[in-house]
Amino acid sequence: MSLLVVGSIALDSVATPFGQTADAPGGSAVFFSAAGAILHTPIRIVGVVGSDYPWGALKALEARGVDLTGVERAAGESFRWKAKYSYDLSTRETLETRLGVFADFHPKLPPHFRDARFLFLGNIDPELQLGVLDQVTSPTLVACDTMNYWIQSKRDLLLELLRHIDILMVNDSEARELSGDWNIYRAARWILGHGPKMTVIKQGEHGALLVSDATTFKVPAYPLQEVFDPTGAGDAFAGGFMAHLASTEDLSPPNLRRAMVYGAAMGSFAVERFGVQGFDAVTPADVRARVRAFKELVHFDVVDGTGAASGRGP
Amino acid sequence: MSLLVVGSIALDSVATPFGQTADAPGGSAVFFSAAGAILHTPIRIVGVVGSDYPWGALKALEARGVDLTGVERAAGESFRWKAKYSYDLSTRETLETRLGVFADFHPKLPPHFRDARFLFLGNIDPELQLGVLDQVTSPTLVACDTMNYWIQSKRDLLLELLRHIDILMVNDSEARELSGDWNIYRAARWILGHGPKMTVIKQGEHGALLVSDATTFKVPAYPLQEVFDPTGAGDAFAGGFMAHLASTEDLSPPNLRRAMVYGAAMGSFAVERFGVQGFDAVTPADVRARVRAFKELVHFDVVDGTGAASGRGP
Repeated sequence: MSLLVVGSIALDSVATPFGQTADAPGGSAVFFSAAGAILHTPIRIVGVVGSDYPWGALKALEARGVDLTGVERAAGESFRWKAKYSYDLSTRETLETRLGVFADFHPKLPPHFRDARFLFLGNIDPELQLGVLDQVTSPTLVACDTMNYWIQSKRDLLLELLRHIDILMVNDSEARELSGDWNIYRAARWILGHGPKMTVIKQGEHGALLVSDATTFKVPAYPLQEVFDPTGAGDAFAGGFMAHLASTEDLSPPNLRRAMVYGAAMGSFAVERFGVQGFDAVTPADVRARVRAFKELVHFDVVDGTGAASGRGP
Repeated sequence: MSLLVVGSIALDSVATPFGQTADAPGGSAVFFSAAGAILHTPIRIVGVVGSDYPWGALKALEARGVDLTGVERAAGESFRWKAKYSYDLSTRETLETRLGVFADFHPKLPPHFRDARFLFLGNIDPELQLGVLDQVTSPTLVACDTMNYWIQSKRDLLLELLRHIDILMVNDSEARELSGDWNIYRAARWILGHGPKMTVIKQGEHGALLVSDATTFKVPAYPLQEVFDPTGAGDAFAGGFMAHLASTEDLSPPNLRRAMVYGAAMGSFAVERFGVQGFDAVTPADVRARVRAFKELVHFDVVDGTGAASGRGP
């Protein structure tokens, strides 16, 4: 099934206690595609780069099955983001954001992108997200990210968007700010009351939640003794989640749970490496092995009063 | 199998955004027993109370199968603890600690307590914990809690204690402080390198980890839309964990995982209620139902390349 992502294509300069990058290819659409392409191709990407963007980085994605037809090349500077993480990687400070050509970005879908069945609206202006949604003829599943900036500055448009999407995928602080409720499960119910059938709440080092009217599913983060760079983990999660669904064409509850685990696996690969290029070396077999490791991490048998076990391990 | 707990028996005055208690029965040994007695009796309790303690509260525990022979009644004031939680319950401030008779407490085990097979050393001075360990003839499993105060003030004795216990059960900040490592999985390895065969790291609203040389197991916290009072959740967790093991007499890895889930279930009952008396109304059937709900919360099937599923749901 066709999978389309709209989002930022950026140059990231990130400092962590373990190293730093300067003008490294990044952005939500790039992390999403790099992770997702391991599981499903083609991934169609819509975004904008300036005349200074290292085009070779995108050609490397193309070689892995990413369709770049929707990447606009505009005169001017590419979107740049500079940030520094705390010693324990739990918080980060944005040092600089330069929108460059992103400031005037109006996503236009190439004609052969308009039949996309799986659509991920990365974190951009909700007005642009609505504009993209208008250009897609009959999507099967629309998932959407946002951030505190849009929650504060474009709340009405964001609420309009919520009425037209299937899954809102945000982090816990965004869910709290959007709903005005610090309890994450009440925040999830608030979101479900405003349009989406499901919400995925990303909790960083504590994993992610899938909440629908029918069920709550929790996947922890993968236990890592070495974490190098959290940048892009949320978008890699989204890429793994959506690519698994597009590849299996199965929106059943059990497969949505599996998609969460594929997302968490991709998030774990993201933080183990600096920048997006780490995904070049990750194979589908690596991903399957990590998914099995997640099973081992959380599996337990229920023993009922008769001594019989339900549930069976991998 | 006989289960013994040594710890504080306190009067708690706790304020949360949802209400407050004044001189309510609490303390690590009390929360442990109240939770554990739902799964296993007798639970033998060793501690001290002052002449002002509401003895009826302990008699209520006795009626549920807690052996009070080891509770010393000393002349003077009972241990009192006063605290206030933040609006989102994520942090708390200790407003007052009055040790009272606890200051001169030297646990003495009644003769029929010395054959205890399962022993939980609640958070008290590691010197006293070592003293209790000396009085128990041949324990099968010794688990131990501690806190930042002892990590800072009695580190050498704590390290000595670690060489003689099977499980260190601490929260994440204590594990970080003890090991000097902010990465929780490296902190767990540090603990395993200092004596214990296993460590249980409690993560509050994010659940708990069991780490041994062979395996890592994660149980999330139960999704609760209403949390009233986090006090005692960690001790209730310990009570559920140890009582499940004592009741099943099974230390196999699958049963240790189940014990973690019983612990998490007890922690969830603790935070849904104010104080310890909420456990009076919890039945073994309630606990089993919550354990099954944990299974539903984390369960997913792995589908391998051939399309066959491994793992089976509850």
